[in-house]
Formats: sequence, structure tokens, C-alpha cells
Amino acid sequence: MSEVRRDIVTDTWVIVDTENDALPQVPLPRPEAAEDCPFDEGKENRTPNEIYAIRDGTKPNTPGWKVRVIPNIKPILRIEGELEKTGVGVYDMVTGTGANEVIVETPEHILNFFDLSDEQIGHVLRTYRERIVDLHKDKRMRYILIFKNHGRLAGASTIIHTHSDLIALPATPVRIKQKLNGAREYYGYKERCLFCDIIQQEIEMADRLVFQSDKFVVVTPYASRFPFEILILPKRHSFSYKEIEHEEIVDLAQALKKILQLMYFVLGDVPYNLILNDSPNLIPRTGYWQTIQQDYHWHIEITPRIYRTTGFELGTGFYINRFSPERAASALRSSL
Amino acid sequence: MSEVRRDIVTDTWVIVDTENDALPQVPLPRPEAAEDCPFDEGKENRTPNEIYAIRDGTKPNTPGWKVRVIPNIKPILRIEGELEKTGVGVYDMVTGTGANEVIVETPEHILNFFDLSDEQIGHVLRTYRERIVDLHKDKRMRYILIFKNHGRLAGASTIIHTHSDLIALPATPVRIKQKLNGAREYYGYKERCLFCDIIQQEIEMADRLVFQSDKFVVVTPYASRFPFEILILPKRHSFSYKEIEHEEIVDLAQALKKILQLMYFVLGDVPYNLILNDSPNLIPRTGYWQTIQQDYHWHIEITPRIYRTTGFELGTGFYINRFSPERAASALRSSL
Repeated sequence: MSEVRRDIVTDTWVIVDTENDALPQVPLPRPEAAEDCPFDEGKENRTPNEIYAIRDGTKPNTPGWKVRVIPNIKPILRIEGELEKTGVGVYDMVTGTGANEVIVETPEHILNFFDLSDEQIGHVLRTYRERIVDLHKDKRMRYILIFKNHGRLAGASTIIHTHSDLIALPATPVRIKQKLNGAREYYGYKERCLFCDIIQQEIEMADRLVFQSDKFVVVTPYASRFPFEILILPKRHSFSYKEIEHEEIVDLAQALKKILQLMYFVLGDVPYNLILNDSPNLIPRTGYWQTIQQDYHWHIEITPRIYRTTGFELGTGFYINRFSPERAASALRSSL
Repeated sequence: MSEVRRDIVTDTWVIVDTENDALPQVPLPRPEAAEDCPFDEGKENRTPNEIYAIRDGTKPNTPGWKVRVIPNIKPILRIEGELEKTGVGVYDMVTGTGANEVIVETPEHILNFFDLSDEQIGHVLRTYRERIVDLHKDKRMRYILIFKNHGRLAGASTIIHTHSDLIALPATPVRIKQKLNGAREYYGYKERCLFCDIIQQEIEMADRLVFQSDKFVVVTPYASRFPFEILILPKRHSFSYKEIEHEEIVDLAQALKKILQLMYFVLGDVPYNLILNDSPNLIPRTGYWQTIQQDYHWHIEITPRIYRTTGFELGTGFYINRFSPERAASALRSSL
């Protein structure tokens, strides 16, 4: 069981596992041997029953799938139960309701996302959309976060078979709220989408543009927190990944493969996180419902994790980035 | 040279080194041999000239000191120059004005803060106060952050001789702003200091209290972001570390040594950050000046860094903590 606790001082929230009493160990992930991987085709009985899969008529939990979604075996949030708010003296908490899924990206034992075919990456991107659409039906699920942890230093688990994580949350995360507020404020005085303006400016200025495809731009953001941080924006204004169309998925699959390959050429097998920044689950006539469709614009962040954050980042919420995004974009372009 | 760039979306800031063009390397800090440490007594000529020192009449930059403060040889912010705000299309930035100092905590080659004597830790704590008082005279310095990085996984540098870092910033950090706002709001409806109420509640509830001394309480915070996160609060209401008194320094030195030893007993040589959460440099009749003295309350955070943060923390600003603060406090108490 877990609790989502509000930090009364910063108005941020922490999910606390209140049952675990195994002392934390400094983790030394040991990659499983290929023959022992529970995510490989034929090992379906070693995982919980699937929630969703792309299959050509084969039966659930048997071989014959392209992408497979399963519950996380160590979920931090559970889907059962009502959202309950409780006060604990000056503090308050809500029960840890949510969902915690794993998206297995290929039946083959492949370790790098960019080693998947364009078509296979397309299947993964379609699965993201399907899971968001499905989970949004449950109005307790306020935000669906989909992300990838690649490499130990990016917090990856011991299972190295390429996969994504999905966590459905009972509250909109602070980072997303900050973005929604920034986008709304900008729209308020310019009457234009902030992200659409960023796309136009980055194409014109060109110094942080890594490349553009027919439907996406790939840039190093102006205020990059990490060396070689990447931002991928759809050119078409769209508030939610749920709206992504077939041609955009085909195009995005190619762009993702290309930028991850470029990073590999320049930096080697760098640890990174990939994060889909979608809209929250809109509830009509509440909060952001009225404006979000015009002022928010979904996007993907890729954050290489080369350095550990220090007391500076923890104490301030600021980041120190010792390699400018202009130089990073230039280094990536030179490998094109 | 560096720039402090505003992320227009989240209203957070990033310090970008725009001159460095050495590609980032995954760091493998190698502890220096004891005979080669530039922070040892007698090696004063291997560091920049000192800014401040506790000495018994000896000359600057010679042996015979107790604590020594020197400029960081790789500063990310420089003290020269006016604060200048510039627009870059939709973006904006300020020049990277500030200060970046290192507080060498002992003339001896000692690696662990808790191996210093109570008296020596007292000298360090007095030095913190002196540097804050001095840097606050420069009104461009809006916030003085003092912190320690212990161990590789906490972002420590290759110099393992025990030391603290000081960064003077041209803007109040977002995390401190969040805390100031939380404290002000609480005061607004309760007319009491939030932190004073937390102290009273933690002493009464006792399940997150590790120990209390005459003048301080040491607790695991309710919404701990990390396993074994520690919060140290002065019992006397005080908005700024600048106000710390002699008896409080003596008491705090003992409490710090004790909690770091307890952590060592329970967890081994765990990497951690220690962060002094002080008030900003108050400018009369601006911003927080009117209320901060009644509603803010300085404190120290210690954050063990056992796990890497993942795409979840980066994407949300939320934390997942798999070891509850109640269990952590209990484990620490059992080693008392």
C-alpha cells in the first residue's frame, strides 16, 4: 500500500510505500541473461496477464504479439479503491490510487529502442495512444505519464529488454501544472500557442534545430537542464497525444529512431529518460478544460543522464548545465 | 561565461555554460592520494587566494588555519558585472552574475564530516554564518545556497577532503520560493509559523522524531522524497541562519555529528546532500520583506542519494519513496 503525501511547504506530492520494511540497498542491476528474460516471446507465463496487446488473432498471454502491455509486478499505485483525502495533523494525504503498467516494445530480445524497425516503433507509439484513451475513461486517473528509463544511470530496472513504463496518477503532476500555467499565461497576452511560437522561432534561428521532418521538429531546448537534452514537437497544433494521426505516427517513429541514433553516434550508449508530456485527463467544466485545447501542445522530452544532480539542484530546483544546447545541436547535426 | 536562462514554460531557470565546448564525459571520480590534496594544510599555494579564514593571527594563504574559504576554480557564476536581462525572441535570460566558493572544513585530510570534532564543526557552522552575512551586503546576491555533496552518487567532485560548497545566486530559487509561499499562506490563515507547528506536532506524534536536543529537533519529514531523508529545525523561531547564536551553534554541531553517525551505522557510507535552507537576501520594502521574518523558519535538509531518479521524477516533479519516514526514523532511533 502507498500514500500520496502533500509536502505542505512546497505544495508538491510524494508517493510513499508505507508497507515495505526491507532496508534500501544501493542497487547494482545485473542484466538478465537473454535466455532468462521474462519479456521475450514464449515467456508470457512469467508475467502477469496482459492488459492490452497488438496481436494478429492469437490468444492473450500466448506467443504471436507485436507489443504487449502488462501490469508492473511491483506497482507503487493500485487501481482499486476510491480516492480518499485524509488529514494527519498539519499534513494531508490521499490514498495511492492509480495504475502502473509496463509496455513491452518487442517480442524479440532487443535492448535499444533505436534497433527496432520503423514499423515496430510505430506499433509502440500506437500502443501509447490506446492506453491513454483507455485509462482516460476512468476519471480518477487525472494524468497518464508514459516514459522510458534507458541505462542504469537513468534509473532503469534490471530488465534490459526494451520497454516503456506507464503510471496513471490521481493528480496532475507539478511539472505539468507549471507547463500548463506557462502556456495559458502566454496565450492570455499573445493569443497564440506558446509551443507553436517556439517551433517557428527555432526553425528561423536554426542554431538549436537538430532536424525537422514533415510533421515534427527536433531541437535542443533553449533552457536545457541537461547536456544534449532534446525536445520533439509536432508541427500541427494539438493539445493531446490522443489526437495523433496515422501519418504523424509513421513520421514520429522515424524521427525518434533518428535522434536516438544521433545521440549514440555522438555520446555512445548514454543513459537517458524519454518522457511523453501529454495533457491531463480533462474533466468538462473544471480547471483547465476551457483553455487547454487552445494553449497546450503535447511534446516529448529526452534527457540524457550523464551527471548526477548535486545539492545545488536539490536545494534550488535550478539546474546547472555545463554544455550549451547550441553546441549540442551542432554536434548532433554534424553526425547527420 | 554563463547565462541564466528562464524556461518560459515552467518559469524555472537554468544556468548554461556557453563557453565550454569539451564534450561531456561520464565522470569517474578518482579520489586523490592524500599527499596530493590541495585542501590540506601546507598546500595553500595550490588553491586561489582565500576569501575568508578562521586563523589565530597567521597570515592569509599560509598554514595555521581552522576553516578556509576559497573561490571555486571552475566557477559557474562570476561576481563581476551588472545583472542584465535580455530577450532572445520568445525567451529571456540574465547574465550569470554570482559567486561560487568552497569552504574547506579542516586543515587535516579528513573525508567524513562526522569525523571532525564538535569544536571543528562549530567553526564550520560559524563560517557559514560569516559568509552569508558578508555576501548579503551585495544586493545583487539574492540567495546564498550552502550545501555539501558527499559521495559520487550525490554529485561530489574528485576532491574528497571534507568541504562545503557555496553558490550566491542572482535570483531566489524556485524551491525556496515554493517554501516561502507555503509558509506565508499557512501564516495567513493560522497566524502561526508553519515550521513551529511542525516541530510541535513531530514532538507530540514522535513516530518521525529521530531525536531532539536542547535547541534542535531532528526528524524524517512526513513527505520525505528519499529514503532516510532528514530535516533539522531550530526550536527557536528564526527566519535566517544569520541569527544563529553561540549556544545554538554548539548544540547544532553535536546534533549534525550524531545524525550523520546514525546514518552511517544504519546505511554505511551512504552518499548524501546536506542543504542549508535559509531566507533570501531581504531588500527592504520589496517582495517578502514584510512577512518573511514571521512566517519563514530556516532549516537543514539531508537527502541520502541511494537511488537514481527516473523519468517519473523528471516528468512529474513528484518523487516515489519506497521506504517510509516512520520506518526510517525507527531504524535510526534503534541505533541511538
